[in-house]
Amino acid sequence: MILVNGVATASLPVSDRGLAYGDGVFRTFAMRNGRVCAWRRQVAKLAADARALGIQCPEETVLQTEVAEAARDAAQCAVKIIVTRGSGARGYAYAEAHGPTRIVSTSAPPPYPQHWHERGVAVRMCSLRLARQPALAGIKHLNRLENVLARAEWNDPDIAEGLLQDSAGCVIGGTMSNLFLLTGDALMTPDLSQCGVAGVTRERVIEAARRNGVGCRVAAVSLDELLASTEAILVNSLIGAWHIRHLGAVAWRQDSMTATVRRWLDEDDD
Amino acid sequence: MILVNGVATASLPVSDRGLAYGDGVFRTFAMRNGRVCAWRRQVAKLAADARALGIQCPEETVLQTEVAEAARDAAQCAVKIIVTRGSGARGYAYAEAHGPTRIVSTSAPPPYPQHWHERGVAVRMCSLRLARQPALAGIKHLNRLENVLARAEWNDPDIAEGLLQDSAGCVIGGTMSNLFLLTGDALMTPDLSQCGVAGVTRERVIEAARRNGVGCRVAAVSLDELLASTEAILVNSLIGAWHIRHLGAVAWRQDSMTATVRRWLDEDDD
Repeated sequence: MILVNGVATASLPVSDRGLAYGDGVFRTFAMRNGRVCAWRRQVAKLAADARALGIQCPEETVLQTEVAEAARDAAQCAVKIIVTRGSGARGYAYAEAHGPTRIVSTSAPPPYPQHWHERGVAVRMCSLRLARQPALAGIKHLNRLENVLARAEWNDPDIAEGLLQDSAGCVIGGTMSNLFLLTGDALMTPDLSQCGVAGVTRERVIEAARRNGVGCRVAAVSLDELLASTEAILVNSLIGAWHIRHLGAVAWRQDSMTATVRRWLDEDDD
Repeated sequence: MILVNGVATASLPVSDRGLAYGDGVFRTFAMRNGRVCAWRRQVAKLAADARALGIQCPEETVLQTEVAEAARDAAQCAVKIIVTRGSGARGYAYAEAHGPTRIVSTSAPPPYPQHWHERGVAVRMCSLRLARQPALAGIKHLNRLENVLARAEWNDPDIAEGLLQDSAGCVIGGTMSNLFLLTGDALMTPDLSQCGVAGVTRERVIEAARRNGVGCRVAAVSLDELLASTEAILVNSLIGAWHIRHLGAVAWRQDSMTATVRRWLDEDDD
C-alpha cells in the first residue's frame, strides 16, 4: 500500500521537487510482526536529514499512523518513507510556504538467500568512485545516481553487494549498506563526513560497541585496512548484519563479531 | 499542459525511479511563436545524457509531437522534458525490461526583469562547492541537490544568479547557466569534465565562436581569471545571454561580446 500525504494513491504530482531535483530524503526499514525496529531512531534520522536540507519533516505521530496503515495487511514487509520539499514551480529556488510531501509505502521483504545470512556474502569492489561533498555527506537524500551506477556494474546474482571508495581512495561502504571492520579486538567504520550515507544501523552498532566495552573507531579506511581486517561486516536496517566472506580472491573466515553485532541489534531496539 | 508518456495527466507513479533516486535526465528550453530554438541539439543532448546513464531515450518524433501538443495553446513558454528510467521495484538495481518515463510540460516563461537583459545582471559567489564526479559531469541529470542548496543561499531578488566553484576552487558556472569570459580578444569557458552541466547554449556559443574566427578555450577557470576578465557572460536556453555587471564589489562595464554572442545565437538556430 502507498500513502501520499495520508491518502491511499499510487501517484504523485509531476511538479514535485522530489522528481525534479531529487529534493528530498528517505528511509527504508523492516517491519516484523507489526513492529518497526528502532523506530525512534529512524524518525530522528529522517528529521535530521530533512533539517539539513531545510525541509520540514512531518510529525512522528503522523508518520507512525501512516506506517501502521500502509503495513496493515503485512506482518513482514519493507517500509519506505520519502519526504520531499513538495511541489513547486520550475526552477531551483523554492518558497518557504510550500509544504513537504510525505510518501509511505510498503513492499515485500527483499528475497535475499538465507545462506547469505548464515554463511556470509561475496562482494565486489565497484569502479565508480564516490564524489566528496561535505554538504550532502551522511544524508540519505534522493540524489542517488552514484548508487544506481555502482549497482549497475554487476548482475551476478551471487554477488550480494558492491563496495565503494571515494575519489580519494577511502573505502566508504556498500551501495546500500555500511561497513564495519574488526582489527585486533576493536571495530572500525568509515568516516562519512565527505560522502556516503550514515545509516541508523551503523549508529546503533557504534553505540552498542561503546556500551559493551568494544572499541569502535570512526575513521578514514584504506583498501589495505579493509583487506587486512580479520572480519568485515555489512549492516543496514533490512539485512541486519552480513559477514563478508569473499571480495574477489580475498576470503574472510571469521564471523564471531558478526554474531555479536546481531546480538547487539536484537538487544537494542529503541 | 503536462503529458506523461503521451497522456495528459499531472501525476506520475510513486514507483518511478526519477523520484526514488533522481534516476533520469532533463532539458529546459524556450518555445517562441511555436518554435523551439536549436531543437535538434536539445534532443541530441537529451539522448546523449540518457545514454550516459544507460536510459533509453524516446524517439525524436515522439518528443516533437508531444512538445507541440503540450505547447498547443502557448506561443511563448518554457518547455521541460524529463526522461526517467521508469518505474521499478525498491532497490538500486534495475531490470533492462523497464521502459523509460517521458514527461513533457510547459510553463510560463520565467519573469526576469527586462533590464537584466539590457543592462546586465548582478551575481554572487555561492559558498557551496560542487563535488567532482567525472561519471556524472556534464550530464543534465535529476540529481540537482547541489543546485538547490546553492540557489537557497540568497533571496535578494536583485541577484540574478549565483556562481559556483568546485571543491578544487575552479569556477564552474552559475546554478542554472554556463559561463563565458572574454580575455583579450578570446573567449574562455570552464571545463566541465569534473562537474557542472554542459548546456546546449554553451555548445552553440563554442561552435559559433570557432565559426566566426573568435578563439574559445575550454579550460579550468580560476577565480582570479574570472575577476581579471574584461567581460563575463552567462548563457542558457531560457535567458540567451546575460552580461554580468556586478559580482559583489567587482564591476564589469563591457558588454559588446554579449551582443555578439546574442547575434550568434540568433543566426545559428539548427
